Amino acid sequence: MREAYHVELKQLADRLAEMSVQVATAMERATEALLEANLALAEQVISDDAKIDDLRAECEEQAYALLALQAPVATDLRTVLAAIHAAESVERMGDLALHVAKTARRRHPECALPEPVRPYFAEMGELGVKLALRTQEIIKSQDVEAARALEADDDHVDDIHRHLFSVIMDKDWAYGVAAAVDVTLLGRFYERYADHAVSVAKRMIFVATGKMPGYGADEDV
Amino acid sequence: MREAYHVELKQLADRLAEMSVQVATAMERATEALLEANLALAEQVISDDAKIDDLRAECEEQAYALLALQAPVATDLRTVLAAIHAAESVERMGDLALHVAKTARRRHPECALPEPVRPYFAEMGELGVKLALRTQEIIKSQDVEAARALEADDDHVDDIHRHLFSVIMDKDWAYGVAAAVDVTLLGRFYERYADHAVSVAKRMIFVATGKMPGYGADEDV
Repeated sequence: MREAYHVELKQLADRLAEMSVQVATAMERATEALLEANLALAEQVISDDAKIDDLRAECEEQAYALLALQAPVATDLRTVLAAIHAAESVERMGDLALHVAKTARRRHPECALPEPVRPYFAEMGELGVKLALRTQEIIKSQDVEAARALEADDDHVDDIHRHLFSVIMDKDWAYGVAAAVDVTLLGRFYERYADHAVSVAKRMIFVATGKMPGYGADEDV
Repeated sequence: MREAYHVELKQLADRLAEMSVQVATAMERATEALLEANLALAEQVISDDAKIDDLRAECEEQAYALLALQAPVATDLRTVLAAIHAAESVERMGDLALHVAKTARRRHPECALPEPVRPYFAEMGELGVKLALRTQEIIKSQDVEAARALEADDDHVDDIHRHLFSVIMDKDWAYGVAAAVDVTLLGRFYERYADHAVSVAKRMIFVATGKMPGYGADEDV
């Protein structure tokens, strides 16, 4: 019984890790679609989102079955509950990549981003992908130090995000209101994507230590 | 044992309902703070957010204890898991009200909202409060029809939110980029607040029916 239980738990972690890889790919493609006004890539992210939703549903069903059939306690219980939370956060990361892709599609053949802000999005995109891939590793390794280190990259995303506001609010901003609105929302999507990666890492710390490292609101805009 | 279990489950639902009332109050005050540039009210929402975070932590601890000690199955299991999800969503509603309050504080003594968009925010605020209070009722009653009906009010918030974009992107928008950025983010906060209320309602439908009425991304911006 316990043997079967740990096989199932491993399978659940593998599914979650697979989801993290998929949302990393989604964000990588969505960022390229955004920067290059690449419609085909945007469409691919949009159609692939259903797979992430399906994986999430599978994770949740498996977690529910584990709870109902095995009634785990202590660390095993925390692991299953962390997986349920993580599945929600990672699916949300997929939604945010989807929003980026939809914005790219909406503005095609134009690029949604005026030239001066593109490097910021290229960097936030890279950091986002890195965060999602490190989330995947943490899910597999349950490495508490790696989970704690994740916050540093999130801080970096927050810094870029804050700086973006000073760019669009500057009196020299020459691209008008519509572009500023796009940049505002897109910046928010990247920032929230990174926040969710941190939230998954915090859940993994909770599994390993039994202590939740604080909720708190997302970074101020 | 089963008796004690149902007493605990009832207590958990009461706490969640109490959280919903608190986030309704937070949104009501945050909206007034925003519309009236009322700093004292904004500060109150900001300092009260910790209470919502505490209630969420209590809900989660209680739910974990229920799972560990009672190993519920079937509907009882779904109820506890729905409570864990709902606590996360309702806390997030509190965070979004907090963001509104912080924006009001940041712009004080100015009003963050140019005059033409104020009625939209007044209406989204009212709908948000209504959604949170109906969420509270649904948590108590587990009324599936009421939960399904919630989506209609969310659609209304989405309509206003979409309309806001046409206002700020109109060539006659005379309030500049900074105000448009504030309106964009504030609109997003209200829209997400309403989405989370719907998400709680969907979880309650899942408890009652055993079927999850679909995840999906939030409404497009």
